[in-house]
Amino acid sequence: MPDDHATLLGRLDAIVGTSNVLRAADDVAPYLVDQRARYHGRALAVLRPGSTEEVASVVRVCAEHALPIVAQGGNTGLCGGATPDASGAALVLSLTRLDRVRGIDAENATITVEAGVPLARVHEAAAAAGLAFPLSLASEGSCTIGGNLSTNAGGTAVLRFGNARELALGLEVVLADGRVWNGLRGLRKDNTGYDLKQLFIGAEGTLGIVTAAVLKLFAAPRTRATAWAGVSGVAAAIALLRLAKGMLGDRLVGFELISDVALELSRRHHPGSPDPLPGHPWYVLLQADDAMADAPLPALMEATLEQAVSQDIARDAVLAQSHDQAARLWGLRENISEAQRREGPNIKHDISLPISAIPAFLAEAERDLAKALPGVRFVVFGHLGDGNLHYNLAPPAGAAPEPFMSNAPLANRLVHDRVHAAGGSISAEHGIGQLKRDALPRYKSPLELELMHRIKDAFDPAGLLNPGKVL
Amino acid sequence: MPDDHATLLGRLDAIVGTSNVLRAADDVAPYLVDQRARYHGRALAVLRPGSTEEVASVVRVCAEHALPIVAQGGNTGLCGGATPDASGAALVLSLTRLDRVRGIDAENATITVEAGVPLARVHEAAAAAGLAFPLSLASEGSCTIGGNLSTNAGGTAVLRFGNARELALGLEVVLADGRVWNGLRGLRKDNTGYDLKQLFIGAEGTLGIVTAAVLKLFAAPRTRATAWAGVSGVAAAIALLRLAKGMLGDRLVGFELISDVALELSRRHHPGSPDPLPGHPWYVLLQADDAMADAPLPALMEATLEQAVSQDIARDAVLAQSHDQAARLWGLRENISEAQRREGPNIKHDISLPISAIPAFLAEAERDLAKALPGVRFVVFGHLGDGNLHYNLAPPAGAAPEPFMSNAPLANRLVHDRVHAAGGSISAEHGIGQLKRDALPRYKSPLELELMHRIKDAFDPAGLLNPGKVL
Repeated sequence: MPDDHATLLGRLDAIVGTSNVLRAADDVAPYLVDQRARYHGRALAVLRPGSTEEVASVVRVCAEHALPIVAQGGNTGLCGGATPDASGAALVLSLTRLDRVRGIDAENATITVEAGVPLARVHEAAAAAGLAFPLSLASEGSCTIGGNLSTNAGGTAVLRFGNARELALGLEVVLADGRVWNGLRGLRKDNTGYDLKQLFIGAEGTLGIVTAAVLKLFAAPRTRATAWAGVSGVAAAIALLRLAKGMLGDRLVGFELISDVALELSRRHHPGSPDPLPGHPWYVLLQADDAMADAPLPALMEATLEQAVSQDIARDAVLAQSHDQAARLWGLRENISEAQRREGPNIKHDISLPISAIPAFLAEAERDLAKALPGVRFVVFGHLGDGNLHYNLAPPAGAAPEPFMSNAPLANRLVHDRVHAAGGSISAEHGIGQLKRDALPRYKSPLELELMHRIKDAFDPAGLLNPGKVL
Repeated sequence: MPDDHATLLGRLDAIVGTSNVLRAADDVAPYLVDQRARYHGRALAVLRPGSTEEVASVVRVCAEHALPIVAQGGNTGLCGGATPDASGAALVLSLTRLDRVRGIDAENATITVEAGVPLARVHEAAAAAGLAFPLSLASEGSCTIGGNLSTNAGGTAVLRFGNARELALGLEVVLADGRVWNGLRGLRKDNTGYDLKQLFIGAEGTLGIVTAAVLKLFAAPRTRATAWAGVSGVAAAIALLRLAKGMLGDRLVGFELISDVALELSRRHHPGSPDPLPGHPWYVLLQADDAMADAPLPALMEATLEQAVSQDIARDAVLAQSHDQAARLWGLRENISEAQRREGPNIKHDISLPISAIPAFLAEAERDLAKALPGVRFVVFGHLGDGNLHYNLAPPAGAAPEPFMSNAPLANRLVHDRVHAAGGSISAEHGIGQLKRDALPRYKSPLELELMHRIKDAFDPAGLLNPGKVL
């Protein structure tokens, strides 16, 4: 159907402008591979619409031509959710030109932004109004709000502020038939029927295309205390979490767990990193914030650490004495992923568990894996305050990555089976995308999958929105 | 079909036991009228199942017989959502016998409760574990968690903790065909597909019957400061909100607005009530909590109030000096509804608005209503921190209620039109039920209603779950 094809491209050109229809191999290449270069797809074209209306018009044309659509934000996802499949049948719809902050309402403590606004720009806009948007991720300079919402992003402040889902008050969404649902409400209470926005959040572009959102803003933190503690094990880290929540209450914003192996790796690949408390098997990075200027927060954090040490919950602990020291402590945690990348391939898991179930899970999973993959090294870290671990497996010391990496399916199975048995989730904050789609039927009940399919059929009966992802 | 009828009742008897099938007029009467005695329904029978399995079996039988089901918790709803219609065709399914606390996990800070557990019992169970469940409502002694979730209840701590929706991590739901979806996860991060629980929360029993939930618990507050401020108007109250959020941050848990008319009414019907700061047109009740024992919270609240007075934001303010004084201040706010009841009929609205839009809304609505209903008295109070007002209209002083109350449809229309125009919601925290069902098409777009119907069809194709409610 060359005529049909030419007509189609002509119509798309007319909607977004020729310069925003990318077809040359070099131009489209960056949009066809995911951040970890695990998935390589093809596409009919990459479109860069500049407004909600243009998105809607493109989707209408796609609906007419039964053309699949893969929406993409900053393309920083970790599960291949924004990478098209290899068929080349789909259009990639890059939303980065929808990059306006539509408005900020300081009295209502809300901001309205388009999907393509990078997360860091939301931080800046909030700060300019004397407020804060608490979602915080490693990729915040390039990830977009649309992607954050579509994957229900987590990050380092979920303990206090929740996931992206909890931070959204309203959405604007282009539906599968090209109609626009305007749900851009800035209300903290609205009980007038089914809460439609909840369906689009975390749906990875399979139910509709998020084009704008109203987000909650908060009082900006004006005092901060950051601390580092060495603990004897994960059970002790959990006891420290409970103690810190009890003493710091809502001030406790971050509670990160880091194993000695993860720390050693982070330090080795980042010369000049500090080593605040050498010699413990596990570490915790704590951060507390207070909206009050000059709050007695460092004293309160110190009292918490003293309690922890005196109760034998922590072996040792240290409070950052400056912004710079705090940043260097955070660096230890944040550099782990990059250190792992430099170290070579490893088998990654983004899991969550009831916090109380984590020690037994770790013991059991370690036993299973040590047996199946002799010499395996465990690189464990994550957001313990949310029950979220990045549970990664590196090859035995000195071993070549390749034979080890071929065990990934087996390792995934062992880890995910244990997570599932403990009431956990095989994807805490990264989503399903392509990466875990085939695993889903093993861990979701047939009934839950059936309900998900019913929703998919209700919103995208032709199956054109991000096919092959999630379901 | 008397045979069919007898068979049906026999099957239901066999499932829940004869003593839990209520048919006598006196027995069923309390289940057939709503709390405000606005709706009087009829029912084939009232069933009191004792377990999720019994609920599921009952629903299966109902599905076979095409029998409508009205789920009911503590029957404290304000929109008739739990009252059957007048046809007498429906079964009322009272869930109050599903009253077990299934478990509490202090390390994970979660509690698993059955739908019929009264809210106050969740508070008690959390407190016994040294934690707190922050949902707080006037009816907490009798309302149930199932009802709280099905109506996405709000209350006095939404400012800090969100609505019931934000407090639920997992649900167990009996679906329209009697199958049980076990989504009882206790995870703060879980991104494995569509978040099904969000659909059942706030759906008022029209998509499934919530039988149990996993709820988030929080550090118990150990210091509290309660204050009362007189302000010149609602714009000043909003400025005070912003100041208090900036200084108190997450400690600010409650921020209630009360007009002088509402206060006078509350005091007149409750002799012995205090009158802390006579002579202001509007008042604000502030509450701040801190998890820290002996936190310098009263001093911080005092500093906030001093700032407010020195910046001309508040005219005057006073800090409660004891638990008893704090309770008496809260009494002023909490007694308004009862005072209104004693005063006689009035036209009620449960609305929300972007906080920034409230002053203009109040001015415009007052102008409209004073013109349409000469002499009308405005009884305005509510959760200003959430943009939620209880905007009630009383007859002119000395006037009989009856001619005035006949204007309710006109008044509702005027108020809701203004709310809608200002980007607000016609039901902030009470839901739709029967009360606002007919108003919904005026304020929801046809597209949004269509999407709601698609969801309803996907989950309850036969339309047996709480027919005539919401949609």
